[in-house]
Amino acid sequence: MATTSPTASARPGLMALEEALQRLLADVTPVAEVERVPTQSAAGRVLAEAVVSGLDVPGFDNSQMDGYAMRCAEVQQAVAAGRPLPVALRIPAGHGSAALPPGAVARIFTGAPLPDGADAVVMQEDAAPADAPPSVDAALGPYGWVRLTAAPVPGQWVRRRGEDVRAGAVVLPAGRRLRPADLGLAASIGVAELTVRRRLRVALAATGDELIRPGERPPESLPRGAIFESNRYFLEPLLQRLGCDVTVLQRIPDDREATRSALASAALAHDVIVTTGGISVGEEDHVKPVVQALGGLDLWQIAMKPGKPFAQGWIDRAPLGGQGRCHVLGLPGNPVSSFVTFMLLARAFLLRLSGVDVAPALPPALPLVAHFDVPRPDKRREFLRVRRNAQGGLDLFPNQNSSVLTSMVWADGLVDKPAGAVIRRGDVVSYLPLAEWLD
Amino acid sequence: MATTSPTASARPGLMALEEALQRLLADVTPVAEVERVPTQSAAGRVLAEAVVSGLDVPGFDNSQMDGYAMRCAEVQQAVAAGRPLPVALRIPAGHGSAALPPGAVARIFTGAPLPDGADAVVMQEDAAPADAPPSVDAALGPYGWVRLTAAPVPGQWVRRRGEDVRAGAVVLPAGRRLRPADLGLAASIGVAELTVRRRLRVALAATGDELIRPGERPPESLPRGAIFESNRYFLEPLLQRLGCDVTVLQRIPDDREATRSALASAALAHDVIVTTGGISVGEEDHVKPVVQALGGLDLWQIAMKPGKPFAQGWIDRAPLGGQGRCHVLGLPGNPVSSFVTFMLLARAFLLRLSGVDVAPALPPALPLVAHFDVPRPDKRREFLRVRRNAQGGLDLFPNQNSSVLTSMVWADGLVDKPAGAVIRRGDVVSYLPLAEWLD
Repeated sequence: MATTSPTASARPGLMALEEALQRLLADVTPVAEVERVPTQSAAGRVLAEAVVSGLDVPGFDNSQMDGYAMRCAEVQQAVAAGRPLPVALRIPAGHGSAALPPGAVARIFTGAPLPDGADAVVMQEDAAPADAPPSVDAALGPYGWVRLTAAPVPGQWVRRRGEDVRAGAVVLPAGRRLRPADLGLAASIGVAELTVRRRLRVALAATGDELIRPGERPPESLPRGAIFESNRYFLEPLLQRLGCDVTVLQRIPDDREATRSALASAALAHDVIVTTGGISVGEEDHVKPVVQALGGLDLWQIAMKPGKPFAQGWIDRAPLGGQGRCHVLGLPGNPVSSFVTFMLLARAFLLRLSGVDVAPALPPALPLVAHFDVPRPDKRREFLRVRRNAQGGLDLFPNQNSSVLTSMVWADGLVDKPAGAVIRRGDVVSYLPLAEWLD
Repeated sequence: MATTSPTASARPGLMALEEALQRLLADVTPVAEVERVPTQSAAGRVLAEAVVSGLDVPGFDNSQMDGYAMRCAEVQQAVAAGRPLPVALRIPAGHGSAALPPGAVARIFTGAPLPDGADAVVMQEDAAPADAPPSVDAALGPYGWVRLTAAPVPGQWVRRRGEDVRAGAVVLPAGRRLRPADLGLAASIGVAELTVRRRLRVALAATGDELIRPGERPPESLPRGAIFESNRYFLEPLLQRLGCDVTVLQRIPDDREATRSALASAALAHDVIVTTGGISVGEEDHVKPVVQALGGLDLWQIAMKPGKPFAQGWIDRAPLGGQGRCHVLGLPGNPVSSFVTFMLLARAFLLRLSGVDVAPALPPALPLVAHFDVPRPDKRREFLRVRRNAQGGLDLFPNQNSSVLTSMVWADGLVDKPAGAVIRRGDVVSYLPLAEWLD
């Protein structure tokens, strides 16, 4: 990518995305309440307390294979000479074992504890049944005799006690958002309950007289000037994926008092109100003055495309009969702008408020090759809807208009194109995979 | 990466991963039952019928900005001469409008329909209030007069009818797994309900006498030879992310009759039984003979690490008083092997059975640079646990043992290392991001 002007992002009157993120994430205090939940129900929750192991994992030296356990030093000569060995013990998984007689081997199964002193396992594919040598007592091998076709090496196919986790070690830190593997690890050290922060309560509000809820009218009889509401249909599952309890508010008409009443009531029962629409500088927008009257609101024009307007505000609950503040995040009304500003701004804020300690605002970009041209630079930083193709390059959705939700359906990621840059086929660009945001 | 032997993956007795996938996915018949669900509840479900648009989106030419709408040709001379224009109409979003008089402009807001014949919008930042010229009737501008500081260009800031979606177009095909943006698109065309396949019913069974459920005993008093069960704790949320209804079965002891009874009963109520453990060639494994007796089972030794053993089978419900077959997927008992074989094999199978038409078995690999060495080639294809670092390269988890679940907690992806290959720092390797599997 070639940047025609390195300072193009500092367009007068517009705020850089980094500055908006910095302001948005400054001094976010996570929800204080915590709760104990069963480990199996904790996927997606945020740890409020570190998980410390009370034991070594594995708790005992054990076999990684079905085979035969032994003390290497005692059997080396016999194996080198091709002599059979007595199978003195049989140790299934989940069972302890008696002492292993000198020079003998133990039939052992995956996960079973090694007999004391045993230091290697030979897998059963490398052992063959054999007869006891005529010169020795066949009863030394109550489970038969075997001839090993591979020489044992100390440590081979043995999992050592504490190899995975040491007793006293922090295995999962506070502030971690729990993924499936984390729950498995907690379970593996016997942790049946986890202390997590309570879920965020988020109210979702769409404003605009032009909005009709799907199902209210058949598509064919949509009045001129009206559009079907779509933002809540992707914002609700996006919020749920972040672990939020979501309330979808009744649609708010373009009316000052209706807006005030709806937002004041939602502020008492939620941590955050997410609005879409109603925050541009147009005269028909009521969210901004209402939130300003009930608390405060900053409206930013961010130097990015899509997604220029974004508002951060709060509602003071005290005059409404409550305590503290409810946060307000104002997303633009255009579906793609709403989706992208949710991903780039709202998501990081909500994760921090949920108690996630390190939530990079943007997933780390991957360098991939553009299989398209964007010859025209833009004054704003652009987030282009793209998709990986079978050749490992990126294709561009032809219509990058921010109203066109089809682009988000088609895309599997965004290209972060700096202000003033152009892209030529073959350029390495910064690709942000959507799946990492949704994780 | 250098491959020391291109045919090393064809190790005698082991099956290539691709072959296992091909066998596993051959002739999967998706669940037949469908149901109607509200669009807002359809995230993660699989479409059984295509969604066809009943209308154009947008349904009318509308403004992308707060500003002024006009017919360019009629105002060009006046704008060039710096003459003010009368504001004859005011059109908020959600409202229709009267006809625009010749040579006049309409105050218009984002999303509002353009008056008939209007072909451009000038944003309000490019317009200033002005006085009516002395020579004309000031009443031509009932909403005032404006002087434009930028000349309008036809099409500017106008969203054309049908630009996003044309009536009659398939916007979402059958067999698509619904992501948040998909629900937004369906809503935007007024679709309030979707026809999806019913969720898969999956039973999750862990076998092994050595397993103790977390909470049954304090970690400190774990008996020698026992381990805490961990696989169900990640498999249950992984299955739920795939949209499955999951039943966790009681732990099955290492006993033939108990195994038979548990699996037969689960087969009657589920589409799939996923087992972990109990499928290796060891004598203590009962799942294999039991499923073989109740239906059939193929046990594969796959040339991959972790995750060598994997079983595909079925249970015939007819002798049990039911109809048809229940699928059985047998995962290895080692946690990392279980996780990786779930991701590489079971996931694709379950998606196909759910009705997803195109489910690539593996997410497309990304080429990233290894910041580590793996000097020792392996006879098997390896899936190494790695994580992207701040420099955009990949770090390797030091302990790649398949029992060590900490590696999956630490990792954000796997490197697909071919059989016989070594990796040297700086090599470009194939990176599979875990987030794409979880999406």
